[in-house]
Amino acid sequence: MKNGLPDAIDVVEAKTSKIDAVDFENLVFGNVFTDHMMICDYVNGEWQNPVIKPYGPIELEPSAKVFHYGQAIFEGMKAFKDDQDQVWLFRPEDNFNRFNKSSVRLAIPEFPKEFFFEGLETLLNLDRDWIKKGFGNSLYIRPFVIATESGVSASPSKSYKFMIICSPAKAYYSGEVRVVFAEKFSRAADGGVGYAKAAGNYGAQFYPTNLAKEEGYQQIVWTDANTHEYLEEAGTMNIFFRVGDKLLTAPTSDRILDGVTRKSVITLAEEHGIPVEVRRVKVQEIVEAAEKGELKEIFGAGTAATINPVKGFGHQGKKFELPELEDSYATFFKKELMNIQYNKSEDKYGWRYLVKN
Amino acid sequence: MKNGLPDAIDVVEAKTSKIDAVDFENLVFGNVFTDHMMICDYVNGEWQNPVIKPYGPIELEPSAKVFHYGQAIFEGMKAFKDDQDQVWLFRPEDNFNRFNKSSVRLAIPEFPKEFFFEGLETLLNLDRDWIKKGFGNSLYIRPFVIATESGVSASPSKSYKFMIICSPAKAYYSGEVRVVFAEKFSRAADGGVGYAKAAGNYGAQFYPTNLAKEEGYQQIVWTDANTHEYLEEAGTMNIFFRVGDKLLTAPTSDRILDGVTRKSVITLAEEHGIPVEVRRVKVQEIVEAAEKGELKEIFGAGTAATINPVKGFGHQGKKFELPELEDSYATFFKKELMNIQYNKSEDKYGWRYLVKN
Ligand SMILES: Cc1ncc(COP(=O)(O)O)c(C=O)c1O
Ligand SMILES: Cc1ncc(COP(=O)(O)O)c(C=O)c1O
Repeated sequence: MKNGLPDAIDVVEAKTSKIDAVDFENLVFGNVFTDHMMICDYVNGEWQNPVIKPYGPIELEPSAKVFHYGQAIFEGMKAFKDDQDQVWLFRPEDNFNRFNKSSVRLAIPEFPKEFFFEGLETLLNLDRDWIKKGFGNSLYIRPFVIATESGVSASPSKSYKFMIICSPAKAYYSGEVRVVFAEKFSRAADGGVGYAKAAGNYGAQFYPTNLAKEEGYQQIVWTDANTHEYLEEAGTMNIFFRVGDKLLTAPTSDRILDGVTRKSVITLAEEHGIPVEVRRVKVQEIVEAAEKGELKEIFGAGTAATINPVKGFGHQGKKFELPELEDSYATFFKKELMNIQYNKSEDKYGWRYLVKN
Repeated sequence: MKNGLPDAIDVVEAKTSKIDAVDFENLVFGNVFTDHMMICDYVNGEWQNPVIKPYGPIELEPSAKVFHYGQAIFEGMKAFKDDQDQVWLFRPEDNFNRFNKSSVRLAIPEFPKEFFFEGLETLLNLDRDWIKKGFGNSLYIRPFVIATESGVSASPSKSYKFMIICSPAKAYYSGEVRVVFAEKFSRAADGGVGYAKAAGNYGAQFYPTNLAKEEGYQQIVWTDANTHEYLEEAGTMNIFFRVGDKLLTAPTSDRILDGVTRKSVITLAEEHGIPVEVRRVKVQEIVEAAEKGELKEIFGAGTAATINPVKGFGHQGKKFELPELEDSYATFFKKELMNIQYNKSEDKYGWRYLVKN
């Protein structure tokens, strides 16, 4: 042991690889997992003995608290391979910090930074072949923690399991995305857990999203629960509106996730002289801008999709289509971000993180 | 098969019972489980082949959606044994209906009523010895559903696992309970999942409850997320206030669970001529009543605790103690409810449900 770290993470290598059975040209997002996973258990008040071993099922008591009380949080990150076969992460410290911020809100013990990075990098090197070169190819990385203590009383678990699993990805969304602005349902309360990547935030959106799908929308843009007058974020993306040449996005709050992609877009906009206003965005103002032809774009920003252009939106039963643009901001930011992520452009802000081989 | 029911639920009996190792006088709530459990899987669009088998661990993919998206709901019910060794449930249809109401909100397929009751009664008969006679003894029953599909994309699972596990219980709370009225954190949003027994609702309360405990309160009484001006419910109990001889409790809403104990208390109050007002209850009115000495009682109502008297409360840093009463409503309702539950009094409302042997 040095600095509370075991000399090396315990590694049990898979005897055979599943990689040859995978069709990397036709990946469905989040469906296929690499050969290995990282596991670390919290027992007796400590995170102990992280191990990397072959990806496979885990065993839990049916009374494990995660099943009953949703005491679970996660992160979503990506690894990219450049033309020289180097593997890069994008602002991983931000994901790590948010991981522990989410943990605190869910009364889960914070995870040690050394374990996180040491484990993640060892895992990525083991499963390096799963990361394919070429724009759009990436490895989606899912660190998460679940409450494992057996017991059906509603109180924090005394034991937890931290894991990292990885899934090769092409693009998150297929097809065109239209969104509806929430009028009845809501995602998060003031003083709630909306800013955390708490498992329960996501399952709670499935039913309203199913209803939206029946109306022809793939996603919901959530509004504030109190008044439904302000636009906040989508299910797994922050949301930007382009009115004229100005970019608008909601400020983060205890209801809204502080997205890594969102803040990168804001920085890039500032760098490139695109006026960006981070302030509460009224539903009414966006509807009026659409009616006047001033609403040029809506796009989502998130790790899974990077930048996801929105084709149209619905509000109070009315449907609005957005114009096709030659010089779309969405395309611009996506390209800028990917150039940085795939080591094709200068890394002015120190966002790239090399996974040492 | 008849009426979509298998002729009998498949039963695999435990070879040995763990019951002799259990100290029934010193049970910790929700810690020990009986010999058997019920399992039913949802696959290919159908709930199939319910089985009862020895209680034990289950195996899941680390990518199972329950771990990542909290798509999980549960119920809490109790079985009671009377002096003639008959086993009773209390308003189980209400729990069953709420189970499916929660499922709908979490985009989980509804569970068939026949499977639920047939499975539950078979299970209770197998584990009958675990239900002890005597006031206060009961078997806590935990039906739940978890999303089991493998996949880290935020969309409803295609497969689920329904289970019932059972835990012998004495009383839920030990020691005195003081509560604090929420001022900053909140439990549920308008348009959210507060009215459902969604797993994520509970984990989200652990952190604020830990903070409350540091100030000397065991529980939080949640207020409306918008203004924190109205008292709603506690973490696992609905809340009643007695001002003078009048009983006050909040109406149910999409933020508040429609508790079986709560509505039973309201019915009993009406029967016994206790004036009860179901309406929004202002924090300010309760604080003022306490200051004038008119606040006689606060108590929680829920399956686990039945009726849980509250000794005092805190608000904006001020602490209030409640008087010791000779003729407390809490004691009265607890006795009335238990007399019905343990088959000691007439069952005017058809609340008792005999588990046929
Ligand atoms: C609710 C929510 N909002 C926004 C985002 C986008 O955040 P990021 O850019 O860090 O991936 C995500 C996904 O991570 C999310 O789950
Ligand atoms: C949030 C919440 N409120 C109230 C209750 C009380 O409901 P019931 O009386 O049906 O047990 C419970 C427990 O079931 C609960 O979880």
